[in-house]
Amino acid sequence: MSGGADITVLATGGTIDKIYTLTGELEIGPPAAQRLLDVLSTDLRIEVRSVVAKDSLDLTDADRQVLADAVDGTESPSVVITHGTDTLTDTAEHLSRHASAAANKVIVLTGALQPAAMAVSDAALNLGAALLASQTLRPGVYVCMSGRAVPAGQVRKDPSTGRFVRRPPITAP
Amino acid sequence: MSGGADITVLATGGTIDKIYTLTGELEIGPPAAQRLLDVLSTDLRIEVRSVVAKDSLDLTDADRQVLADAVDGTESPSVVITHGTDTLTDTAEHLSRHASAAANKVIVLTGALQPAAMAVSDAALNLGAALLASQTLRPGVYVCMSGRAVPAGQVRKDPSTGRFVRRPPITAP
Amino acid sequence: MSGGADITVLATGGTIDKIYTLTGELEIGPPAAQRLLDVLSTDLRIEVRSVVAKDSLDLTDADRQVLADAVDGTESPSVVITHGTDTLTDTAEHLSRHASAAANKVIVLTGALQPAAMAVSDAALNLGAALLASQTLRPGVYVCMSGRAVPAGQVRKDPSTGRFVRRPPITAP
Amino acid sequence: MSGGADITVLATGGTIDKIYTLTGELEIGPPAAQRLLDVLSTDLRIEVRSVVAKDSLDLTDADRQVLADAVDGTESPSVVITHGTDTLTDTAEHLSRHASAAANKVIVLTGALQPAAMAVSDAALNLGAALLASQTLRPGVYVCMSGRAVPAGQVRKDPSTGRFVRRPPITAP
Repeated sequence: MSGGADITVLATGGTIDKIYTLTGELEIGPPAAQRLLDVLSTDLRIEVRSVVAKDSLDLTDADRQVLADAVDGTESPSVVITHGTDTLTDTAEHLSRHASAAANKVIVLTGALQPAAMAVSDAALNLGAALLASQTLRPGVYVCMSGRAVPAGQVRKDPSTGRFVRRPPITAP
Repeated sequence: MSGGADITVLATGGTIDKIYTLTGELEIGPPAAQRLLDVLSTDLRIEVRSVVAKDSLDLTDADRQVLADAVDGTESPSVVITHGTDTLTDTAEHLSRHASAAANKVIVLTGALQPAAMAVSDAALNLGAALLASQTLRPGVYVCMSGRAVPAGQVRKDPSTGRFVRRPPITAP
Repeated sequence: MSGGADITVLATGGTIDKIYTLTGELEIGPPAAQRLLDVLSTDLRIEVRSVVAKDSLDLTDADRQVLADAVDGTESPSVVITHGTDTLTDTAEHLSRHASAAANKVIVLTGALQPAAMAVSDAALNLGAALLASQTLRPGVYVCMSGRAVPAGQVRKDPSTGRFVRRPPITAP
Repeated sequence: MSGGADITVLATGGTIDKIYTLTGELEIGPPAAQRLLDVLSTDLRIEVRSVVAKDSLDLTDADRQVLADAVDGTESPSVVITHGTDTLTDTAEHLSRHASAAANKVIVLTGALQPAAMAVSDAALNLGAALLASQTLRPGVYVCMSGRAVPAGQVRKDPSTGRFVRRPPITAP
């Protein structure tokens, strides 16, 4: 893996990347992960790349396939994906079905309830957690929000609190 | 573990907790971890507690023993310790020798190169990483700085960069 | 003026007061001026009060009259108004015509291009400037943006830059 | 004054400019005023320049003379000086006696109780106030702290609160 990254961060937009424009609207800015990681003094090679820049409610299955291909195309064993929170668990499930890399990479999706550009935001805490999860978990796809990492399919967002909670397994009747 | 915390955070002072006083000096304030974790919407039960409040260069072996006892006294399986960076690896090694809890708890030490009270700091990213490490690693004592978690004894701080780097294992002659 | 405030700050909403909600939208939060002023150690008696909480494009003449009445009802000689930037100069002109207090109070309108809740915002700088202007200028209505205070009617917002610039006086033909 | 600045900001160090170093100490960084003013969209020409970079307790009369000469050498009618708070009023009095420019320029000293690099600081509010004061007051030397501008010699810092309060005039016996 000479020359490659240890961890690849793929940005897809979402709340974490939102900035406030001159016309008083929110738009997706450049990947916040880059600025958040700039505070870190490390010899880990971390590469941040933008794959798509959308509100997660606007992501299509085509976008998710572009993302799955991007994941499959990375050389690093650890992949962190920053993503809007509304459909973050959907994309995680999509990747666990469609990214063949899920068999041998650790793929961790994270995001934020408050934009990283706000003075008070959960973005840095979540990104730090995802970074660690991507190095310590077994291959597969995980959602890393609310302070923990949960395998894709076993977690949902509670829209009334923004909290990501474990979902009871669906058992056959 | 009914009623107990899932994760206990023990604060010991250090750069992460430094605040600026009216007289123009730095002093150890209340545990920064509490405020950093307040941004998190989670159903994890995280308890933050101050054990000692010192610059890590001033920590004595007696202080380290107080900390080891505090770790042994926690009920939660995951313990995060916030600590000054100068002797963080020393305390990690001390705990791996003297905290009997190291056999069945995950104990993760972290800190920051810039106080959490600064506008730009690595504190939130490091704490998020430590939080995750304390839930995903096997029992033992770890240093979680510079974006990764390394077992106690295998890492040192490079004072010229503030970076925590893996230390080559010491082999017998 | 026993018991009264030295300076009254009236909040009307606008960008300066915007916060990000759980559902991913911006809404007008509590007056940002209060939190911005909390950093100040002063024996000035400053009272912050919300009059209306709207995007300034949604302010009606009825709202402006409510504001004019609120200004007339204050006892302090200095009044600072925080306001959305899009119609800030319109409200200033309205007040100079309709607030009878404009004859004996210094009334200063200010706001921000970035919400005060963002990590990087012009809100504190603008509010500090408005606070000073309200104590040093002669009675009348002023717009305090872009680092200076200009009498109502002599300034407009350049929408392409967000900058407030002096407007050439309209001369009779 | 073609080509010149409208306002000159002279930095002298002090709390406002303090940054935290890798070795855990505070030192005077580059003038914080520059970064604080970068948020402002304005056509005012504001020039920021470092004259001396010291804790204000360490400023000597020689330093104050260098500053007085720098003030006299500026072409702009408005001069803002950022300064440590401990001897800010002393320097103001020195300038009112020794800077000949005090006769035809508005010279405003300001600073901060918390470094501008902290997440919560009075630096931006104070600088905004000083900026406005430098454009609206009559020629002379002023201290702009605690939300107001007071002529040199009529104000002192209360060390127990950090607050700048009016000083009763000294009357002859």
